[in-house]
Amino acid sequence: MIHTLARACLLALVATPLIAQRPDPVRRYVDAHQAEIVRELVDFLRIPNVSSDTANLRLNARALVGMMERRGIQTRVLETGGPPMVFGELSAPGASTTLLFYAHYDGQPVDPSKWIGHRPFEPVLRTGAVERGAQTIPFPARGPYNPEWRIYARSASDDKSPIVALLAALDALRAAGQRPSVNLKFLFEGDEEVGSPHLETVVRRHRDLLRSDLVIMTDGPQHPSNRPTLVFGARGITTAQITVYGPDRPLHSGHYGNWAPNPAMELARLLASMKDAQGRVTIPGWYDDVVPLSAEERAAIAAVPDEQPGDFGFAEPEGGPGSRRLERIALPSLNIRGLQAAYVGAEARTLVPAQAVAELDLRLVPAVQPDRQITRLIAHVRSQGFHVVEADPDSATRARHPRMARVSAREGGYAGIRTPFNHPIACQVTEAVRRSSDKPPVLLPTMGGSIPAAWFPDVLGTQVILLPLVNSDNNQHAENENLRLGNLFEGIRTLAAVMRMQTR
Amino acid sequence: MIHTLARACLLALVATPLIAQRPDPVRRYVDAHQAEIVRELVDFLRIPNVSSDTANLRLNARALVGMMERRGIQTRVLETGGPPMVFGELSAPGASTTLLFYAHYDGQPVDPSKWIGHRPFEPVLRTGAVERGAQTIPFPARGPYNPEWRIYARSASDDKSPIVALLAALDALRAAGQRPSVNLKFLFEGDEEVGSPHLETVVRRHRDLLRSDLVIMTDGPQHPSNRPTLVFGARGITTAQITVYGPDRPLHSGHYGNWAPNPAMELARLLASMKDAQGRVTIPGWYDDVVPLSAEERAAIAAVPDEQPGDFGFAEPEGGPGSRRLERIALPSLNIRGLQAAYVGAEARTLVPAQAVAELDLRLVPAVQPDRQITRLIAHVRSQGFHVVEADPDSATRARHPRMARVSAREGGYAGIRTPFNHPIACQVTEAVRRSSDKPPVLLPTMGGSIPAAWFPDVLGTQVILLPLVNSDNNQHAENENLRLGNLFEGIRTLAAVMRMQTR
Repeated sequence: MIHTLARACLLALVATPLIAQRPDPVRRYVDAHQAEIVRELVDFLRIPNVSSDTANLRLNARALVGMMERRGIQTRVLETGGPPMVFGELSAPGASTTLLFYAHYDGQPVDPSKWIGHRPFEPVLRTGAVERGAQTIPFPARGPYNPEWRIYARSASDDKSPIVALLAALDALRAAGQRPSVNLKFLFEGDEEVGSPHLETVVRRHRDLLRSDLVIMTDGPQHPSNRPTLVFGARGITTAQITVYGPDRPLHSGHYGNWAPNPAMELARLLASMKDAQGRVTIPGWYDDVVPLSAEERAAIAAVPDEQPGDFGFAEPEGGPGSRRLERIALPSLNIRGLQAAYVGAEARTLVPAQAVAELDLRLVPAVQPDRQITRLIAHVRSQGFHVVEADPDSATRARHPRMARVSAREGGYAGIRTPFNHPIACQVTEAVRRSSDKPPVLLPTMGGSIPAAWFPDVLGTQVILLPLVNSDNNQHAENENLRLGNLFEGIRTLAAVMRMQTR
Repeated sequence: MIHTLARACLLALVATPLIAQRPDPVRRYVDAHQAEIVRELVDFLRIPNVSSDTANLRLNARALVGMMERRGIQTRVLETGGPPMVFGELSAPGASTTLLFYAHYDGQPVDPSKWIGHRPFEPVLRTGAVERGAQTIPFPARGPYNPEWRIYARSASDDKSPIVALLAALDALRAAGQRPSVNLKFLFEGDEEVGSPHLETVVRRHRDLLRSDLVIMTDGPQHPSNRPTLVFGARGITTAQITVYGPDRPLHSGHYGNWAPNPAMELARLLASMKDAQGRVTIPGWYDDVVPLSAEERAAIAAVPDEQPGDFGFAEPEGGPGSRRLERIALPSLNIRGLQAAYVGAEARTLVPAQAVAELDLRLVPAVQPDRQITRLIAHVRSQGFHVVEADPDSATRARHPRMARVSAREGGYAGIRTPFNHPIACQVTEAVRRSSDKPPVLLPTMGGSIPAAWFPDVLGTQVILLPLVNSDNNQHAENENLRLGNLFEGIRTLAAVMRMQTR
């Protein structure tokens, strides 16, 4: 049986699509209710949800409970000590399979000065992508909504629209007189964007509540082809902040510059030592624990059209000409996500900075553990001649060590995960997705982004797959985050198909 | 004659001090009027003077005119298009020598959040250095003021206190019934901290007004020994901003990181290529135009105790153990004064930054021209594989060049200057300074800082020396700028002595 299912999954990689021939009542429902679906999303987006904004996150959770209860979902707020998680359950009489849908309702920080034409929590509708000059238009009170239109707001894509799509899928099934074929559970997290500090505790504390046959995470962008996308894994992540110390106070660069050591230059040298010109991390052991992709996973990657550097405004990927993104994201990474020393621009002044800071994120793959990667990073910093301190150095420490750096690693990083292509329930989901669309699905062994999903396999023994729904050019995490409406409407149909999937 | 004077100057390097044996009426005046001298300075410091704050700079200029006119100085406001310069003249009947004293009344930008316990334009008095735990005390209405006390405020040392000292020196002479032996001119600039963009024009436009036998700049810190200090030159400066471009927008570091090129890493690599581990600039030609120090200048440096790394909280200078600051500042420099890419700290987010910026200041020495140094910098950036653009690259440029950088050099940099030790009038000043104090003066061929003084020799043919008065640990340009009061009081006595110097 498993063998057959595995074959079915693999067939999905190459099969021509099975276009649903019957009239599709779910599609009819979505087409007829576009305006109210958009309205529910817009209302949800108006509630600010930066991960540090505890008060507003509670308002989000409260709104979410209301939205779920209106659909008859049995809802519970799971307190975490931080922003709560919202859990929901909807049983299907006679069903033996349970799917747990995960999404998160918090969002990345915002820098309102960089958003074009509106504030991040005041959603606007545009006729397309703002980078291509699309115009802002009022939200029409009635559909049809053009699928190319986009909603601009923080979390429009990451990750509030999947939540609204899940609920709209239930509405659509109900309106069509159809019932889910599986038991449904929902878990909506409130601090995913700061690394899900409470997910492990919640999973451990609520084992029974969260028990399921497969976790489906609706987060991250679809393949840029806008074909339905199934992703069988994700990179893990940890982060580290490196501070390099110079003089104990900023010094006048004329009187002391080029005599006092410059921490910005030392940091530049240290960072430059971490990667070669082909983007390969040169820190010893960085790739030691990597589990290579299987032949099937490599074949799946080869079958997928990859993204082009030109779409992102650069000429050549870090790995050199022709280096494929899908191969690069199967490796642990080292990314400089921020740099700072003294001042730039109008605030610049002629100083030797007292310190220089780099923020790194280290993406992880299965079996590459955050702690070990941080240990390797610290060993490398030492090997470059730095005395590694655990707090700002005192004067005795300063007097002893010509070079000093602090490496602060974030608590609670997590490794990557990868579900085998032939996992039985995952195969049924794949099949449902394949049948729901006239476009063949893209199957990927891993996504580049990170989701704190390792606790589900580690604690519950439940595998995880991802069913991302949003457009890839959504400016996730950055200013001008947006959602292409076609992705929302098709996402609802996809989710409805999964909720009605054929079980064996 | 010149030969004798030159010998006198050189003798000053090693001579034991000529302690003024007679009762000193100038000293008596200063001792008796400390409180009112401090009050005039504090009132002046209360007027905000950040170089970009045009309105407040005019208030400063107006206050300055009042302070000068109260001393009978013939005052003129020289309009520049920016903050005005304030010029003043006080003739000495029968004198054939004219000294032009230069100082500036503007200050560096401030970051009030970093000032301890008060705002930068609300001066406070402390019993010593705040870094060593000194307490804030009220300004006593009457002296004596302890010489170790310090005034904390922006421009307390750089460069308002020398202005107040010059005016107090006139008061002291007058109270002592003494007259200046030389004609005095004063030029107080209002935008020195942004590179004196109008000084060239003013010097060219007012040649006659500014004509003098020597320009004495009262700016910069005294030698840390707190001995009277005479500096015969200064480094010039130019600045450059380097922007390295990555993707055309910030990208999610999970999905695109380590495939999209990271501009922060490319910038780190570029900066690291500019200096070797001994702090020597590796940009070809960087030192080509340097005029070596003369034997006398080297001897003068050798006679001066140098500053110790430990005083600034680091273990080893950039040039390696034992490398001397006074030698390093006789060379052109390259200092990273600011670094920035995306966000650090609480604002950090998991992005590949779209660009990374480094701010450099390049200190110059005599004969090293700003334009040539910038040309060398740009050639080096090219040699590291960067396509150098003059504006943010368009998409066609982005598609052609794997690496792109913009190098924006500031207009109006200037080369260093150096007056020979045996310049006749400079020697007379040296002699006066030597006689004014019981501590032998420190004579230095150059200071590390920059003053836009090249226009005086270049346009007027007038040489320049510096007579810095303030304590070296004054936190110039940074937060918690301060002035040790002993330096103010001794500075007044030094200036009075120079105004009464023996002419031949």
